Amino acid sequence: MKVLLIGATGTIGKAVAERLSGQHQIIAAGFRDGDVQVDLGSPESIKALFEQVGKVDAVISTAGLAAFGPLAHQSDDDYQLALNNKLMGQVNLVRLGSGYLNDGGSITLTSGILSRQPMPGSASVSMVNGALESFVKAAALELNGVRVNAVAPAFVKETMAMMGMDTSSGISAADTAKAYEAAVSGEMSGETLDAPNFL
Amino acid sequence: MKVLLIGATGTIGKAVAERLSGQHQIIAAGFRDGDVQVDLGSPESIKALFEQVGKVDAVISTAGLAAFGPLAHQSDDDYQLALNNKLMGQVNLVRLGSGYLNDGGSITLTSGILSRQPMPGSASVSMVNGALESFVKAAALELNGVRVNAVAPAFVKETMAMMGMDTSSGISAADTAKAYEAAVSGEMSGETLDAPNFL
Repeated sequence: MKVLLIGATGTIGKAVAERLSGQHQIIAAGFRDGDVQVDLGSPESIKALFEQVGKVDAVISTAGLAAFGPLAHQSDDDYQLALNNKLMGQVNLVRLGSGYLNDGGSITLTSGILSRQPMPGSASVSMVNGALESFVKAAALELNGVRVNAVAPAFVKETMAMMGMDTSSGISAADTAKAYEAAVSGEMSGETLDAPNFL
Repeated sequence: MKVLLIGATGTIGKAVAERLSGQHQIIAAGFRDGDVQVDLGSPESIKALFEQVGKVDAVISTAGLAAFGPLAHQSDDDYQLALNNKLMGQVNLVRLGSGYLNDGGSITLTSGILSRQPMPGSASVSMVNGALESFVKAAALELNGVRVNAVAPAFVKETMAMMGMDTSSGISAADTAKAYEAAVSGEMSGETLDAPNFL
């Protein structure tokens, strides 16, 4: 399979690339690095990405920016970042990319279990994660021959360590990558795959 | 209770006003009509609304614009309407309005069961409904002394009739209003109340 992986240089993206690269051809897309570049916040950049890469069998996004912060202090800009980048950036991968999928192909986006298991400071992140999960459920009804799903990671150990958190409850990026593999190789569409269920 | 009802002149809003007005003082807010005016798409207008109305015991929103349309044909503007109006308009009621609630007060937003039971043409509507449900779940963790919930209506009979649909599976606006009453009079926070469960 030819797999376009957006966010390939991130913590989860690298693990997904590593897990899939034995069996599949990975085209790594990053904001600055990778085989091709894309700015998820720009529909024009997403269009240019698909024009450059052409037809693929799977699109995986492990990308999308959104910021944590107390509800009382998050700014309009914090909300707009989450909406424009993590949410609409990934929604636009479906809107602009579904025509570039070979028949039977799949698009896999990244939400996060904070949609259903929030924590203080996650309001805007939980919001866009919930939006992505409902979007894939609805979009799946109208995409013929192309599956669309979301993977909902929990905090990964690597990120927790970087933030100085206790990592004992975390799941490694390598284990999180198993959910993306399941989404690509499976038959489901419109589903959210909670990464902790795919260890 | 002093209840600020935003969207009071809409199909569901009118029914909520009717159901609550026997027991509570309703301040009806509409885009053009009502006791006070507000444009949900404008944070400045929302700020002005709360400054004008002052402290209340409950805020209920039955407002918020979002358009149905085929995934393949919906425009960037369709998505922005749903994001700016139905989603961020209601999120901003919480961000800008929570300080105007008397202790023990509540904010009740409107999502819709399309978040979890989508239909073809509902992608952007389902998306913002899911966003609202995850937002209230997360925001509830940080709002001290103020409850925040969403009511998820199904299509109401009145709207189905207006659209020329078979109304036999619909729920009336009057019955839908019962879920809003439950949200205002109850003790829950961070919950989504599916209107069909409150008949």
